[in-house]
Amino acid sequence: MSPDLRSYFAHSLKLTMKRLPLSDARNKEVPKWFNLVNPLDDPGKTRGAAGSCGYPTSVFKVVNRRDGHVYALRRIDNMRNVQALEQCCELAVGLWKRVRHANVVPLRQAFVHQRAVFLVHDYWPGAQTLHDYVNARSMSNALPENILWSLAVQLLSALRATHEQKVSFRGGISPHTVLLTGRNRVRVACSGLMHVVEGPFSDTEEKHVLEDVQAVSKLMLMLACMSTQVKDSWQDAVDFVSSRYSKEFTTMVALPLHKSCTVYDMLGLCSRGLLSELDEMYSHSDALEEQLCKQLETSRLNRLLFKINLVTERPEYGKSESASWAETGDRYIIKLFRDYVFHQTTDDGKPWLDIGHIVTCLQKLDVGSMEKILLNSRDGRSILMVTYADVRKCIDEAFVELHEAHRSSQYFQLKMAGGPPKPAQGFAAAQAAAVGGMPGRRGPMMHPGHMTYAHQAGAGSGNPYAAAAAAGHAAANPYAHHQMY
Amino acid sequence: MSPDLRSYFAHSLKLTMKRLPLSDARNKEVPKWFNLVNPLDDPGKTRGAAGSCGYPTSVFKVVNRRDGHVYALRRIDNMRNVQALEQCCELAVGLWKRVRHANVVPLRQAFVHQRAVFLVHDYWPGAQTLHDYVNARSMSNALPENILWSLAVQLLSALRATHEQKVSFRGGISPHTVLLTGRNRVRVACSGLMHVVEGPFSDTEEKHVLEDVQAVSKLMLMLACMSTQVKDSWQDAVDFVSSRYSKEFTTMVALPLHKSCTVYDMLGLCSRGLLSELDEMYSHSDALEEQLCKQLETSRLNRLLFKINLVTERPEYGKSESASWAETGDRYIIKLFRDYVFHQTTDDGKPWLDIGHIVTCLQKLDVGSMEKILLNSRDGRSILMVTYADVRKCIDEAFVELHEAHRSSQYFQLKMAGGPPKPAQGFAAAQAAAVGGMPGRRGPMMHPGHMTYAHQAGAGSGNPYAAAAAAGHAAANPYAHHQMY
Repeated sequence: MSPDLRSYFAHSLKLTMKRLPLSDARNKEVPKWFNLVNPLDDPGKTRGAAGSCGYPTSVFKVVNRRDGHVYALRRIDNMRNVQALEQCCELAVGLWKRVRHANVVPLRQAFVHQRAVFLVHDYWPGAQTLHDYVNARSMSNALPENILWSLAVQLLSALRATHEQKVSFRGGISPHTVLLTGRNRVRVACSGLMHVVEGPFSDTEEKHVLEDVQAVSKLMLMLACMSTQVKDSWQDAVDFVSSRYSKEFTTMVALPLHKSCTVYDMLGLCSRGLLSELDEMYSHSDALEEQLCKQLETSRLNRLLFKINLVTERPEYGKSESASWAETGDRYIIKLFRDYVFHQTTDDGKPWLDIGHIVTCLQKLDVGSMEKILLNSRDGRSILMVTYADVRKCIDEAFVELHEAHRSSQYFQLKMAGGPPKPAQGFAAAQAAAVGGMPGRRGPMMHPGHMTYAHQAGAGSGNPYAAAAAAGHAAANPYAHHQMY
Repeated sequence: MSPDLRSYFAHSLKLTMKRLPLSDARNKEVPKWFNLVNPLDDPGKTRGAAGSCGYPTSVFKVVNRRDGHVYALRRIDNMRNVQALEQCCELAVGLWKRVRHANVVPLRQAFVHQRAVFLVHDYWPGAQTLHDYVNARSMSNALPENILWSLAVQLLSALRATHEQKVSFRGGISPHTVLLTGRNRVRVACSGLMHVVEGPFSDTEEKHVLEDVQAVSKLMLMLACMSTQVKDSWQDAVDFVSSRYSKEFTTMVALPLHKSCTVYDMLGLCSRGLLSELDEMYSHSDALEEQLCKQLETSRLNRLLFKINLVTERPEYGKSESASWAETGDRYIIKLFRDYVFHQTTDDGKPWLDIGHIVTCLQKLDVGSMEKILLNSRDGRSILMVTYADVRKCIDEAFVELHEAHRSSQYFQLKMAGGPPKPAQGFAAAQAAAVGGMPGRRGPMMHPGHMTYAHQAGAGSGNPYAAAAAAGHAAANPYAHHQMY
């Protein structure tokens, strides 16, 4: 993975994990089935100030305990007529369910709680409103025209997908409700907002559609001028844009200011932007697929390491049958192989650390290479010559053996029979209690096939947010741990 | 990763690794700095039969030993005037270097060798020519119109990017030279072919541009009719398409048959296809980014496992200082933690295998969770209560200690001083010899920072082809092993 992408993802995960201290009063502003709350509003914003829709709103990143997913939760206060609102919420969600577009942040839920209305949208870590973005840059820091075309095409595509479903944003589009995420992607994040606030029905849908197109045109002028002050005079903005960008772009962006036009009229003037945007997306998706393909190997090595560690140095199993299962027979070869991979030394007795050696060995083990290696016993007296394929076979067989023993456990049989697992005692029980569960309840079990079958979903490939949330905060939040499964 | 994507990637890697036996005569058809040769032609094809460009051609998957990358190598035989050809090759490569588009397979090299011309293109594992694809499907198995639009838009985008650079395919586009790769992606794989065969200069570039557009139109008719027989009567094909698909599509696809038109004329009729293709690509790229983000975690867990295994059960290091470094102090906690993660048992003494437990523990270790766990000593007499953060600290410290010892090795110092590393003896030397290198030569060393720094490229994140090649075939191919680094 490229360092840029890696740090972008790491940063996203970090933001996703960020939370208010439990003592913070703002935790109480969200219904209690949401946790890991973190406010997303500008820290300087006055509490209770009227937001873009005319009512005081605040936005939080939350994790829904019920499904383990991360959402952006928008709270709108001081609403009247709560009874009617509930109906509005239901209708708005039904209406917006029809709109599925990558540049429209989907509305997942809307409900009334504690005399406030809540809208649940998908969360984009690190998203910035266009308003904040423009304010953070200066006018001299103008965007190149190809990026402006890309942003325009994205916003118009979002409008097109929305209007095609006979839905509109109803003037909800503003610099405060459009987000910039990742590499020059814009997403309209106010779906359903106006429908909830003003009621889902309107006789003037036609007017709203034109409003949306105008709003996009104004956003684009703001971005092209890189100033939030453009709203004082749109004609000045158009003049400025025409002095800096191509005639084609200026004509497209200024069209809705001069006459009422639909999103198709604007898209008709975007052919240049559309074509290069598409080329860009083809290349981007190829690059991402290439990266993903590389990562496939990582998760295969991961599962091999699990297997090796499950078998080697296992003290408890097999006490009755043989003195030490893990030290004899095929397992002895696995142990020596583990030493070979991880415990290299120089001949002056110092450890030799070489990640290239570790990865190469595991790769060869994974494909079962016929290359021969020498494994020394720890006392240095005997040497075994084996191929990677031999070691691979030993590991697979030892694992199958381990798995059969696992299946012969009375807990496994109880579980299969559907009965409640008998609480484990002693060693296992103490540990089970510490992680807040009994052995039989702790999630999907491992079958031998799971680890060799390439189609099996990789370790940790569930919902990363839920898993990460469980990992970081299980101590504080008894629900999070169970969300993982 | 979704099972589909995973099996697609696994299949791609397998195809990339496929090779002829070393005894096969066809290995000799490629210059000797290419290896892992595998023929890509239809097995039924007669050796030496004239290919699409009028000369006998054969195509191989190869790995270039010089850069470790995988390529598709096209050999064209029976060419005359070898002297002039060399100049043609050079000019063709220079010309096609200007065209960079996701739907055009790039030409990397062209050269004359053994009285044959070789073209080196990028390799797409699992690619199928449109000719083979159509023949493998029946006419009743028609493609839905949205996929046809997508294919048309891709081919026209490729033409547009090419013609914009004043380059054309010169009639090289045919069902045999256009590849279908992955999920409905088409790629024109004949860049430079006609320039090499016919010489790079032509007075009739205008004519060639029209030829390209016509060729794409005919390909689309073939795909829409799902028959390679359409070339007998194009008008019949158009009639058939108009009976099955929308008027919009038929008009677009038949345009170049009735009048000479450019790629822009055709794209002008594609607005519907363009817009939905773009929407599709936005969603696809979002989905891929989400998958990649999940994989980031796997590679972090991998590096933790490397660290744990480097420290635990290490017998050699520290013999002089203490009886067993790996069994005392902080390392003892790491050992018990390893037992806790991998060696869970039920209280009837059976092993308990639970991949969920392993992954959760490692995730919590990764983020240094403050959650407490109980670690039992092996004899069950003492219990330690530690947090994941404590264990994490122990691992990091033990690793730093190990790394310092590594740096104090005379081999490390010799290497830093730039001198040739003294061959290791005994234990390490025997093992080093077995993998074909000395400790000091075996690639990048591991620094403590490498494993904790999130920006560091993941294990095995180099060129996967080279690494995989090294893993699978190092025994047979002495070059492959070194390509990895």
